[in-house]
Amino acid sequence: MADAKKYVYLFGGGTAEGNAKMKNLLGGKGANLAEMAAIGLPVPPGFTITTEMCTVYYKLNQRYPAELDEQVKTGIAHIEKIMGKQFGSPTNPLLVSVRSGARISMPGMMDTVLNLGLNDTTVKGLIKQSGNERFAWDSYRRFVQMYGDVVLGLKPQSKDEEDPFEVIIKAKKAEKGVKNDTELTTEDLKDLVVKFKAAVKQRKGMDFPEDPKEQLWGAINAVFGSWMGNRAIIYRRINKIPEDWGTAVNVQAMVFGNMGEDSATGVAFTRDPATGEKVFYGEFLINAQGEDVVSGVRTPSPIAELAKTQKAAYEQLEDIRAKLEKHYKDMQDIEFTIERNRLFMLQTRNGKRTAQAAVRIAVDMVKEKLITKEAAVARIDPDQLDQLLHPMFDPAAKKKATVLAKGLNASPGAAVGKVYFNAEDAEAAAGRGEKVILVRLETSPEDIGGMAASQGILTVHGGKTSHAAVVGRGMGKPCVVGCGALSVSYTERRFNVTVGGQTITVKEGDVISIDGSDGSVMLGAVPTKDPEITGDFSMLMKWVDEIRTMGVRTNADTPHDAKVALDFGAEGIGLCRTEHMFFGGDRIDAVREMILADDLAGREKALAKILPMQQEDFVGIFRVMNGLPVTIRTLDPPLHEFLPNTDDQIEELAYKINRNPMRIREKLHQLHELNPMLGHRGCRLGMVYPEITAMQARAIMQAACQVKAEGIDVHPEIMIPLVGTMGEMTNQKDLVVKVAKQVMKETGVTVNYMVGTMIEVPRAAIIADKIAKEAEFFSFGTNDLTQMTCGYSRDDAGKFLPFYIENKVWIDDPFQSLDQEGVGKLVEMGVKLGRKGRKNLKIGICGEHGGDPASVQFCFRVGMNYVSCSPFRVPIARLAAAQAALAAKDASTAGASKSTM
Amino acid sequence: MADAKKYVYLFGGGTAEGNAKMKNLLGGKGANLAEMAAIGLPVPPGFTITTEMCTVYYKLNQRYPAELDEQVKTGIAHIEKIMGKQFGSPTNPLLVSVRSGARISMPGMMDTVLNLGLNDTTVKGLIKQSGNERFAWDSYRRFVQMYGDVVLGLKPQSKDEEDPFEVIIKAKKAEKGVKNDTELTTEDLKDLVVKFKAAVKQRKGMDFPEDPKEQLWGAINAVFGSWMGNRAIIYRRINKIPEDWGTAVNVQAMVFGNMGEDSATGVAFTRDPATGEKVFYGEFLINAQGEDVVSGVRTPSPIAELAKTQKAAYEQLEDIRAKLEKHYKDMQDIEFTIERNRLFMLQTRNGKRTAQAAVRIAVDMVKEKLITKEAAVARIDPDQLDQLLHPMFDPAAKKKATVLAKGLNASPGAAVGKVYFNAEDAEAAAGRGEKVILVRLETSPEDIGGMAASQGILTVHGGKTSHAAVVGRGMGKPCVVGCGALSVSYTERRFNVTVGGQTITVKEGDVISIDGSDGSVMLGAVPTKDPEITGDFSMLMKWVDEIRTMGVRTNADTPHDAKVALDFGAEGIGLCRTEHMFFGGDRIDAVREMILADDLAGREKALAKILPMQQEDFVGIFRVMNGLPVTIRTLDPPLHEFLPNTDDQIEELAYKINRNPMRIREKLHQLHELNPMLGHRGCRLGMVYPEITAMQARAIMQAACQVKAEGIDVHPEIMIPLVGTMGEMTNQKDLVVKVAKQVMKETGVTVNYMVGTMIEVPRAAIIADKIAKEAEFFSFGTNDLTQMTCGYSRDDAGKFLPFYIENKVWIDDPFQSLDQEGVGKLVEMGVKLGRKGRKNLKIGICGEHGGDPASVQFCFRVGMNYVSCSPFRVPIARLAAAQAALAAKDASTAGASKSTM
Repeated sequence: MADAKKYVYLFGGGTAEGNAKMKNLLGGKGANLAEMAAIGLPVPPGFTITTEMCTVYYKLNQRYPAELDEQVKTGIAHIEKIMGKQFGSPTNPLLVSVRSGARISMPGMMDTVLNLGLNDTTVKGLIKQSGNERFAWDSYRRFVQMYGDVVLGLKPQSKDEEDPFEVIIKAKKAEKGVKNDTELTTEDLKDLVVKFKAAVKQRKGMDFPEDPKEQLWGAINAVFGSWMGNRAIIYRRINKIPEDWGTAVNVQAMVFGNMGEDSATGVAFTRDPATGEKVFYGEFLINAQGEDVVSGVRTPSPIAELAKTQKAAYEQLEDIRAKLEKHYKDMQDIEFTIERNRLFMLQTRNGKRTAQAAVRIAVDMVKEKLITKEAAVARIDPDQLDQLLHPMFDPAAKKKATVLAKGLNASPGAAVGKVYFNAEDAEAAAGRGEKVILVRLETSPEDIGGMAASQGILTVHGGKTSHAAVVGRGMGKPCVVGCGALSVSYTERRFNVTVGGQTITVKEGDVISIDGSDGSVMLGAVPTKDPEITGDFSMLMKWVDEIRTMGVRTNADTPHDAKVALDFGAEGIGLCRTEHMFFGGDRIDAVREMILADDLAGREKALAKILPMQQEDFVGIFRVMNGLPVTIRTLDPPLHEFLPNTDDQIEELAYKINRNPMRIREKLHQLHELNPMLGHRGCRLGMVYPEITAMQARAIMQAACQVKAEGIDVHPEIMIPLVGTMGEMTNQKDLVVKVAKQVMKETGVTVNYMVGTMIEVPRAAIIADKIAKEAEFFSFGTNDLTQMTCGYSRDDAGKFLPFYIENKVWIDDPFQSLDQEGVGKLVEMGVKLGRKGRKNLKIGICGEHGGDPASVQFCFRVGMNYVSCSPFRVPIARLAAAQAALAAKDASTAGASKSTM
Repeated sequence: MADAKKYVYLFGGGTAEGNAKMKNLLGGKGANLAEMAAIGLPVPPGFTITTEMCTVYYKLNQRYPAELDEQVKTGIAHIEKIMGKQFGSPTNPLLVSVRSGARISMPGMMDTVLNLGLNDTTVKGLIKQSGNERFAWDSYRRFVQMYGDVVLGLKPQSKDEEDPFEVIIKAKKAEKGVKNDTELTTEDLKDLVVKFKAAVKQRKGMDFPEDPKEQLWGAINAVFGSWMGNRAIIYRRINKIPEDWGTAVNVQAMVFGNMGEDSATGVAFTRDPATGEKVFYGEFLINAQGEDVVSGVRTPSPIAELAKTQKAAYEQLEDIRAKLEKHYKDMQDIEFTIERNRLFMLQTRNGKRTAQAAVRIAVDMVKEKLITKEAAVARIDPDQLDQLLHPMFDPAAKKKATVLAKGLNASPGAAVGKVYFNAEDAEAAAGRGEKVILVRLETSPEDIGGMAASQGILTVHGGKTSHAAVVGRGMGKPCVVGCGALSVSYTERRFNVTVGGQTITVKEGDVISIDGSDGSVMLGAVPTKDPEITGDFSMLMKWVDEIRTMGVRTNADTPHDAKVALDFGAEGIGLCRTEHMFFGGDRIDAVREMILADDLAGREKALAKILPMQQEDFVGIFRVMNGLPVTIRTLDPPLHEFLPNTDDQIEELAYKINRNPMRIREKLHQLHELNPMLGHRGCRLGMVYPEITAMQARAIMQAACQVKAEGIDVHPEIMIPLVGTMGEMTNQKDLVVKVAKQVMKETGVTVNYMVGTMIEVPRAAIIADKIAKEAEFFSFGTNDLTQMTCGYSRDDAGKFLPFYIENKVWIDDPFQSLDQEGVGKLVEMGVKLGRKGRKNLKIGICGEHGGDPASVQFCFRVGMNYVSCSPFRVPIARLAAAQAALAAKDASTAGASKSTM
């Protein structure tokens, strides 16, 4: 046995074999229980079976290695010794809880069994220990119910079926003519135990296990089994948790919050997880078990009220709150139980929080000197920051809105959408492109998919730590809970609410607006306004920029977008698409005239009309950017995108430009392509029609010279799209340079400009060393690069890509997060070869991946100079870039021992 | 001067500074003149200015380095010394020729000046030397005409304008009332010189240079200048000759074939360049200069007749013929001049030949022990072999054809097409997809483009060494020349020919057939038949297979194609496309039923109908291949390709399968894709509809077990198309293996099968190490890989790719010859990573590049096990593979000093 692998770690009694750093092995809960025990907090003793065991368990086809049995026996003996009780003792029985605990919290996803160790004999011992017969039998019936459900699988067989145990309880209550469980007598509870066991026997064909050891192994199996349950798998996919992390199992002495009015149980955060305010934030229930709080069935009391009934325990809890924050240097999410006035800590972990709270807590903790600026920056999830960058309700519009009700503000933000009353319908509607608000009495883990698909979540029951609230905050979804004023009917698919004496009915598909910041529920779509970066957020972003070394630019085609991005901290424009300027007003007519021209002279005549308009566009953008670099891409889309499609449009155009409509149809036919994505577009247009490139180069340079003459600094970077060969790069660059020289000679103004290219065709990445001899900068167009490298048309991938993501062929959508293994290899190759060809080549990215944190960090690692993303994602990219810099610093100081990611 | 770079190499007088191995530096002609001089042949003395000078000349913006002048002076002195004449001497003048000479011959592409050194003074010396006043003045007027044209650029300004010198000659002949140049008197010729010079003065504004040295430099400039002329540029593009090779300039003492009836000039091949027969093959003209023979204006006499008038010279020529072949070990193309019974060799070079001749000469020379088998194999151009693999006229059909006329059989092969009378029209028609026969009085270098675009070439004038004949053979185009029976009118765009007393008119666009093997011209389209490998060709291919190490397979979808390929030496099937089997007969109905099915059950029902038909297809192929490996690709194209398009077809299908036509239209709409190339196709179908892959795997394995039970060995290789991720490879492989195991269990027959994948998505090449963990073989699908790597849709690239090739953005069409610099890098990466993932991974190529010699050699170099190509290209691939093996052997024995290409 001395050589056996250690799968069980003990804790409690003032020491622990593990600590908080062993999260990967012991899971978050186990590691923190060990840590809490080690720092002297009152933790019920117990042991943790490692996450490694979970992996071994599945490798062995759901069996255990021989050595585990002995180690678990040792663990039980450890608990027995500290608690002075014996597992299965008829006189002084030890009861335990069995809980899952993965590396990171997966609230409600995995299974738990409480009060384990009770049977017809030990229940008598519990009566003796507690002196409370009713409590003992209530614990026993709860155990049988929970074990029957979780371990033995006695669950509703369909959506319509009620929980089999609840059916028995209802029948008993009806029989006794009572309304609440608490009104049932000891005898009633005894009878429930008998009836529960009979239901198990009848439905599952097995006797309920009486042997506590058998019970224990059953529960351990169930916890490991729940790791591969459907709910857990979906949760992992949404939260990008690898399957091979596994879960640990924590077996711990039971303590009881339901031993009477001197007992309680609660959950709390050391700071407000919604706002980040430094207040003790939580809820408790007198005479209850922990699950009662989290499930949201009973609405608990705010934590502050605990001081009234349990002053000593409350003060001890306040001390522990301070001690935990000092120890963990982060906001903690704790679970506690008070058993007959004695406080036990059941769990502590870093608390989930809204983006707003995350920012405030991080900034406050720096001010409190608890953490460094770097730590503050490192701990904010860039993806989560998105919450702060989404529109809020316009306060003026909100004042005028019809407020239907106010619930609890569980997760901030503005959400507008059509009401749906179950997760499946919500998901289906979102799949059709609808914006959805999921309205439920309360949510449960089965609703995860529907919650993820919704704009926001609204529940009638539950507190701020209810399932809906916790999951909503985790997903960054606006969430209002405990909105008891709503009267929801699932069957009629509507809710009623009384406003000013009148009953308003909101049916499935009706639009409502919910504000997760103040809990208000409003009728119809309330207008929203753009967010701003102020206060704590502004402070954090200041630190971000102090740490960050990689540039962040924006993709913007208009002065307005450029201004928004500047306000969000953009340091230039990484992609200005000129084709968007080709639409609108008279321009499109001139563009169409150019396309339909029979010869060069005709095209040049039409281009001459477009030139001053394009110039004016660039002047506007250059003025806003005021000296920052502006990368302008020459025409990219195939010409047919500019032509009309319908007969009416064709006739109208024909009339306008005085042409035979037949001729336009002919041209449309001629320009038609089977695969336009791989057709005559990008620089291939500028090659065949150099006059287009020439016009655009002229417009850019004339605009640049004009603003330069106004005294504004200007740095145009002219970008040739879709280059795949040296010939294209050379030809288009020569053309641009020729025009630029002409314009500067004509205007007498000298402008520093560059000519570079998009790297978006795989071949360009492969011959990047050659292309860099001519190109003065590269910008990776990872949208097209992904399309061509993977062979996926974004427009058509809907037929298989969702299926692929569903079936784990892809973990992430490669159009959302850069495919580092495949496309990323070409990007790396392009960067490396590019710098080989031109030592100081300026390199950036302008695909949509430029706003995805994981992709931004990748760009940093491969050595890009900047990323460029949509205006609203600029702060996210800044944060991700700063974190990448911190990770690189960590890696370089820590050597190879720590991953940079 | 001692340190000056050597740009001038002397030859003649029994020695030479250069030799035949210095072709790159001295050009083909210069190197061979040096070689001929060195081995003691009667070569007029001269010197060669190197090709290096050509490159320097363009680098210096068409100027020369200082040292050249002195070296040219030395060269002239060398000639003067040997010839005993002085350049510019009024009494004993030396005349020289100035000719171009690139590394490889570019017939008619580049400029030449003869009789250089003549002026109003030296012409008197020539009279003295030759004792022939008329000859001297004729030489002078020829020089002024040639120099005026080539150096001074006095040419027709448009297509319609006649040559300005010819206009003057015509006027003179009209004035004198004579028909032929030979009837002009000495005085007439003197007058022509005056008038020619006057024309130069008037049209070019300059005096004709009198100073021989000025004349010399003018001619040298013109030769270097012609390297960048339009004709030369087009020729280089067609023949893939790099621009930086440059041309040399050969300055050589003039000898005269036009000094009277005891003088002659001729060209000859040491063997028949059309058939390869070992006969002395050539033509000569009495009293003429060399250009008269090549231009095709006068029809010369066969070489054998020279023995009648110039017995001694002829015998000397026969000796030289043998000496040259023994020395060069290849068939030689020679130019000679007889000046007053004295033979001079002007040039020798490896002779251009038809594929048939190339094969026969190579095989004969092995038999003659002149060369080794390896040398024979190495010298056949695989591209040229294509000529032997194209259909010949069916002898039976040809007997019944209306023969319009017989010309000279200048380049063998059967050509059928519409008649066009000028190069531009021929090119335009070919561009429209027409098959074209170019009919001309005679061709000139301006016609190159039209000749390349034609199926065959027919000329009225000229011999077997005329421009049309030489170029036709070079291009492998069937060519009939000297077909004097045709009366061609360019203006009426027709030719008349009298057959059996009746005049037949063939107009532009009428179809004729020409047989370059026997010179016959036939009316209408004469049917052709498939070629066979017999005789010398068969012998050569036997040697090829002895040398070759890389396998050659074929792409074949039917037993018939498989049989053809087997006869051509295929060693397996590298690509059998199953979708072609989905069309035809009742199958397409079942396929459509499958596509239109509402659910899995419906699809499975339809697939069950297809299964036995697919099985039967595979049985047929397995039987033909009789133990050779057969790679079968599962379904690849998007499903919409199988559905009907027109309303009628839709109604018909709806009736057949008893469905609402609306439903079919809906499905069509649903399946429509914007970029089907990058859409739901390949294994993406098999992923979403695993039942399709399962049916195909079952059909393959059932067929394999069936023929195995018949006693035939069978090696199916099941190939999954369009894999880009590990998930796809694993999923589809697991499915195939599952079905294969089932089928083998059901039938009780065990078959050795493999499961592998196409590498055609760039991402697959990038993660090839991972994919190879599952895939048992790779086959590079370079068609799609090229599309995706370059971002070119083959269907749409017609809008820009021809422009790109025209403008040298691409040297070769990347869909014809593998883009080694771009796509090739991914192929290399895929091979390297693939073998890293699976050491003995079997790797092949099945894109169309598998039949392109340069691509085949590339495949050998990167280490593929086999190439697969269309049946008719199998011998070409075999030869290319053998040559690659020889090149690798050469490289390994020669070390790094020689390129493997």
